[in-house]
Amino acid sequence: MSAYAARAGVTAAIIVPAGKVAAGKMVQATAFGAKIIRVDGNFDDALSMLLQTISGLPGFAGMNSVNPYRLEGQKSTAFEIYEQLGFSVPDYVVLPVGNAGNISAIWKGFKELRDFGITEKVPRMVGVQAVGASPIARAFWKGSETITPVDDPNTVASAIRIGKPASAKKALAALRESEGMALTVTDEEITAARSLLSSKEGIFVEPASAAPIAALREISGKLEKDAVVVCVCTGNGLKDQESIRIDIEDAPLVSDRSGLTDLLERLASRPLVPA
Amino acid sequence: MSAYAARAGVTAAIIVPAGKVAAGKMVQATAFGAKIIRVDGNFDDALSMLLQTISGLPGFAGMNSVNPYRLEGQKSTAFEIYEQLGFSVPDYVVLPVGNAGNISAIWKGFKELRDFGITEKVPRMVGVQAVGASPIARAFWKGSETITPVDDPNTVASAIRIGKPASAKKALAALRESEGMALTVTDEEITAARSLLSSKEGIFVEPASAAPIAALREISGKLEKDAVVVCVCTGNGLKDQESIRIDIEDAPLVSDRSGLTDLLERLASRPLVPA
Repeated sequence: MSAYAARAGVTAAIIVPAGKVAAGKMVQATAFGAKIIRVDGNFDDALSMLLQTISGLPGFAGMNSVNPYRLEGQKSTAFEIYEQLGFSVPDYVVLPVGNAGNISAIWKGFKELRDFGITEKVPRMVGVQAVGASPIARAFWKGSETITPVDDPNTVASAIRIGKPASAKKALAALRESEGMALTVTDEEITAARSLLSSKEGIFVEPASAAPIAALREISGKLEKDAVVVCVCTGNGLKDQESIRIDIEDAPLVSDRSGLTDLLERLASRPLVPA
Repeated sequence: MSAYAARAGVTAAIIVPAGKVAAGKMVQATAFGAKIIRVDGNFDDALSMLLQTISGLPGFAGMNSVNPYRLEGQKSTAFEIYEQLGFSVPDYVVLPVGNAGNISAIWKGFKELRDFGITEKVPRMVGVQAVGASPIARAFWKGSETITPVDDPNTVASAIRIGKPASAKKALAALRESEGMALTVTDEEITAARSLLSSKEGIFVEPASAAPIAALREISGKLEKDAVVVCVCTGNGLKDQESIRIDIEDAPLVSDRSGLTDLLERLASRPLVPA
């Protein structure tokens, strides 16, 4: 949002729950010239305060997923998936669900593709939440159309650490209409999936973006053979660097060729040159 | 490199000058499962030690721009520029020059497009170095075909903090053959250009990537009217976050609607609602 505001010459304010947003996102917003305002509370408190405040403040518009223009933009993810799959619709679209704008918007995009006669089918939408912040999954399982907010949402995946999602109703409709499902994953499963994705696939994402991969590991055995599954990874891993524990001072330090040779040889499964 | 190695199932070691590489790059390489080895010295020391070591070590290949396969991959940037400009060749391609692989490779790509009869012209290559690490620019200005290494290269732009570029000869040939030019910029100019790019264009890059923008500000008045200029921004700003000074504890903290209203009103150029 701050990048687009910078390009458009519009003043941007970023309202964040104090101490709860990954540092990279703050750095990025600051670089784009946005004004950061911290709210004493969690994401839900910050969103609620923002919406109440700007409703009486002409000249300001909230850019969260309660803003319909935001969903109109986000729905184009569906068009991109369709295009990048060679103009075909996947069987499943799996994505992390926090404030629930993305799943609502992507479902809208696929419905429009079908309603305009461009495609014949729609995918099943699979929403993944962290166990500690799963109001939508719980409502879905109960068959309820409204959520019971989670007062103290808790998960390593800061982007989906949300207890009272603004687009909960739309997301629940997306899950039902698409004959999809809601799943929850633990922080351990998220962290393991993030590591798998980076160390085996070369894709480095923020923790929330690994939630779909964690969920997929759980259900892949139950899906139809040859099902086409798209997992949406929503955030670059560089935004959330603090969750990768790296102490660079622990990396070996060498000062000559023999030291480097020794380390490289140890790195290979067996000595590469005879002793 | 570590991302591709992860995807291919190949063991990767990253040899870095201790304390001289942006933290985000270390986090990324670590996430991809690469083994980081620090060398006591600067970039040039690390590269020289690496090349000497692996020359006697079967099973290892250096992936720096001395590796011809690397340049073959990088040259495709020229094809992408050609494609993304609607299948036309720009008048100028401006890019940061550190180890000089990129400028050599991109020039190779444009030459091949012309030599295979796909295009008729080639762009002028403009290489930009930091004042404190400018061996190629100095050699170019002197009309020399070889560089005098800079023993203690120094610039805020860590990605081009290189005193003895491996591909210096190829880069000098690219500048001359293309009838291009070499320019230097100060750290202050780099920092100002980085800020301009993020706050006005919504593009957040690492410091080295802002060097072409800094150079362009200097020369834009001297270029032909309607010249098409492509600046290559080589690195995401999230890789080098430490160079953006942000003290999040300094951001205002609010706990109620009136506090937020007050801040938002002050942010607007004049009060948006009557007192």
